[in-house]
Amino acid sequence: MSTVMLTSKEQKQSTVITVHNNHPIGGDITTVIAGPCAVEDRDELISLAKQLKAMGVHILRGGAYKPRTSPYEFQGMREEGLLILQEAGRAAGLPVITEVTDIRDIELVLKYADILQVGSRNMQNFELLKEVGKINRPVLLKRGFAATIEEWLLAAEYILAAGNWQVMLCERGIRTFEKYTRNTFDISAIPAIKYLSHLPVIGDPSHATGRPELVAPVAKAAVAAGADGIMVEVHRQPEDALCDGFQSLLPEQMQTLIVQLQKR
Amino acid sequence: MSTVMLTSKEQKQSTVITVHNNHPIGGDITTVIAGPCAVEDRDELISLAKQLKAMGVHILRGGAYKPRTSPYEFQGMREEGLLILQEAGRAAGLPVITEVTDIRDIELVLKYADILQVGSRNMQNFELLKEVGKINRPVLLKRGFAATIEEWLLAAEYILAAGNWQVMLCERGIRTFEKYTRNTFDISAIPAIKYLSHLPVIGDPSHATGRPELVAPVAKAAVAAGADGIMVEVHRQPEDALCDGFQSLLPEQMQTLIVQLQKR
Amino acid sequence: MSTVMLTSKEQKQSTVITVHNNHPIGGDITTVIAGPCAVEDRDELISLAKQLKAMGVHILRGGAYKPRTSPYEFQGMREEGLLILQEAGRAAGLPVITEVTDIRDIELVLKYADILQVGSRNMQNFELLKEVGKINRPVLLKRGFAATIEEWLLAAEYILAAGNWQVMLCERGIRTFEKYTRNTFDISAIPAIKYLSHLPVIGDPSHATGRPELVAPVAKAAVAAGADGIMVEVHRQPEDALCDGFQSLLPEQMQTLIVQLQKR
Amino acid sequence: MSTVMLTSKEQKQSTVITVHNNHPIGGDITTVIAGPCAVEDRDELISLAKQLKAMGVHILRGGAYKPRTSPYEFQGMREEGLLILQEAGRAAGLPVITEVTDIRDIELVLKYADILQVGSRNMQNFELLKEVGKINRPVLLKRGFAATIEEWLLAAEYILAAGNWQVMLCERGIRTFEKYTRNTFDISAIPAIKYLSHLPVIGDPSHATGRPELVAPVAKAAVAAGADGIMVEVHRQPEDALCDGFQSLLPEQMQTLIVQLQKR
Repeated sequence: MSTVMLTSKEQKQSTVITVHNNHPIGGDITTVIAGPCAVEDRDELISLAKQLKAMGVHILRGGAYKPRTSPYEFQGMREEGLLILQEAGRAAGLPVITEVTDIRDIELVLKYADILQVGSRNMQNFELLKEVGKINRPVLLKRGFAATIEEWLLAAEYILAAGNWQVMLCERGIRTFEKYTRNTFDISAIPAIKYLSHLPVIGDPSHATGRPELVAPVAKAAVAAGADGIMVEVHRQPEDALCDGFQSLLPEQMQTLIVQLQKR
Repeated sequence: MSTVMLTSKEQKQSTVITVHNNHPIGGDITTVIAGPCAVEDRDELISLAKQLKAMGVHILRGGAYKPRTSPYEFQGMREEGLLILQEAGRAAGLPVITEVTDIRDIELVLKYADILQVGSRNMQNFELLKEVGKINRPVLLKRGFAATIEEWLLAAEYILAAGNWQVMLCERGIRTFEKYTRNTFDISAIPAIKYLSHLPVIGDPSHATGRPELVAPVAKAAVAAGADGIMVEVHRQPEDALCDGFQSLLPEQMQTLIVQLQKR
Repeated sequence: MSTVMLTSKEQKQSTVITVHNNHPIGGDITTVIAGPCAVEDRDELISLAKQLKAMGVHILRGGAYKPRTSPYEFQGMREEGLLILQEAGRAAGLPVITEVTDIRDIELVLKYADILQVGSRNMQNFELLKEVGKINRPVLLKRGFAATIEEWLLAAEYILAAGNWQVMLCERGIRTFEKYTRNTFDISAIPAIKYLSHLPVIGDPSHATGRPELVAPVAKAAVAAGADGIMVEVHRQPEDALCDGFQSLLPEQMQTLIVQLQKR
Repeated sequence: MSTVMLTSKEQKQSTVITVHNNHPIGGDITTVIAGPCAVEDRDELISLAKQLKAMGVHILRGGAYKPRTSPYEFQGMREEGLLILQEAGRAAGLPVITEVTDIRDIELVLKYADILQVGSRNMQNFELLKEVGKINRPVLLKRGFAATIEEWLLAAEYILAAGNWQVMLCERGIRTFEKYTRNTFDISAIPAIKYLSHLPVIGDPSHATGRPELVAPVAKAAVAAGADGIMVEVHRQPEDALCDGFQSLLPEQMQTLIVQLQKR
């Protein structure tokens, strides 16, 4: 390419995204995003959101539209889930992030969410990228599980080129031959993105490792490598979760992790 | 899963898909799909289509909506491309296949195409899968370049579960550490699919290898391994192609390949 | 590199290796190598060798030194195994191939084997390569399971540079994210090697797939793609084999495969 | 396996290896190993070793036997290199580590080195593992670039089973589709090893990333994830290095990294 990419460090030193009028992502603070994989129950989520807020979490996550490998798995609560997520966020005083998987749902999701997430399987759903590029709301773009760093930045470029510069990137592990972990967290991608681009970068150790005992060490590693934040799955009864419970931290484990991060 | 998957061999021995009321895919004939990566020029495509028909090609391919890694690359001629593709197919007496990348375009593409293609990057675009599951038209589902065979069959399951059983699968190479080839053609996936499922399977050696000198050997290997057909990119001036010219065969190379396949 | 590699096609069109004074590898014949993963029992191997000879197998394989992932697995019968292998080969009138894993064993193995095999795990054991480069005996060099085609040719280059040009290459599958098969057979590597080098290339579908139902289709694909031969594991009681029985063909399955290859 | 592996956490909580009678690896101290890829020049190495000692490095590294992809690349200074390495270590008061690639060289290397390194390409050179299992000297076992965590621990098991429990493991990156970095540093492997085994684990960010600007962030990440130490390539004139200069830190960059690690 002859011109300088919009995502490039040559455009600007760094981007700070302000969420919901107050929380900055990409500056000096290590942003902590936490919550369940999927929105499941109203009262439970409100209670969990308050607990997360109290321990220092900045943003509440929860999926309402779940892209699942099998058509027979739980697909999410859809609009009802969005409503519950928003309610829980408001009750706890936390902005919320949720995934959008269908162009036709963007308008609806915008009514409820402070940050839109584009998931790993949709990183090269270019039509979706173009559409979220037209809105005025922060977007978290997860790395495709088999996308190169270059392809990831070019996917972000689709969003910026369409007009939306409020993009943060999220490393969530890539697919390799190693099967002890669910994916392989590409720790080098964190400083590589900081070196190549002005966009903030978040680490997701939950999807990367798929093992709760590895979540905290990898989260700390991501921050040590320069990540602007982490996104962690938390659930009070992991064994009963409708989605990905096996990789969720208990709230008390999340609290320990936050304390360790603050000590740094 | 407790129930038998719809894609499973336990449901039926084999599926034969009849395209455009006459050509059967999945039976005794080796189906040959060929054409340029992208629709580019009307007269040229009509002429090429007639040439391909004369040498024994069964189905004409050509992209009108091109999912491209960078937003600054040629994105396809869109509806104009669909119109040209249909015209070329009719002029040559060939059914046509083209990719759909956006749920909102399905209805439009149905006006022009005999087979809809879901591309590698959209293999887990589950919303798109659900929608092509509602139509009455054959669908070619390319394997995601980092999808396991199990995930690929589950993606097909989304289409069948929504009501459309006219699904054929297309192996087009997976992403590995090897960089001599563009992707690594997973030859074992061909007999694995035939062993696990009743759906027809097609091999695409062009995207797999990314090198014209490897296309014919890999095409012959795919057929020897049990593939029901092959899909090959052909262009008369590969060096001038707007998309993937580097991996295209010349028409005369395509003819040689067809003759070799017929000798078997 | 400024000079032309010894393995390069620029050196010569093709190499034909004559084994044991009569069988040519690399010419018009498709060489068939077959036998058990490991030498286990004298009488059984002699009987199997005769059966293989009768069905058209050209070379008998059998491991005496087995590189095993765990130190607690069967490590091979060592010299006793070499002796049995040679005896079985002589009884059946078949030349024999076996793996050497230790520089110190080369001299011993040379007393018994017609072809020396360097295994996948030793493809970049450069000291071993240098030593087998000093002998006057054909060497089969398996591709490392994570070696690029370039690295594989450079490993062969070590042997040729040391003076031994009787090298044949063996594709046996590479390690990828796909876990349905044991490895991913890189079918494109067959024509790539034929395009880049004058050395003969053999396909090993047993280690590549790890599944008996996929061995024959992949063997036929390898030959269709241009392989000079195949190497297949055969065992009469796969379930009792001390090594890799799960991927072995029964003798009758091997016979069917040979008949199918001859029909081509 | 029915019995508990010798490398398993069930055998003991943690192993501390004492190098050269004083430096402990695996306890509270973060061990820093540094030096050039290959021993090249006597005076230069002595001078560099003293500089490294002064900035807090604990162990000097330097290769005398270099396993190289091509037979035409610099293969190391062999015994002369061992002599220089030992001299430099003594002059600076640093124990030294160097790689052994050939069983026949073990005895010689033992005369000069305080720690023997088994490199990535030899991780499954089981004959070499058995032999270094018979000596009474610490061994650093690098992970094969395509080895699973399980295979890596089983390779270590070969050494322990032969009698040598002074084994430390070294994560140096695995081979994936990502080509921005030389390899992909598997950060999760660090806490995974600490969870599964009592053996110390070291991180090598130089070979993993292949890019000097990523070495310090990945080194800090490794330590944050629980690594017992790091091993880093340092060279004063990277552009003149005979081996892997492109990934070497300058001494002043190494000093900055050590200061940052000490602040933690």
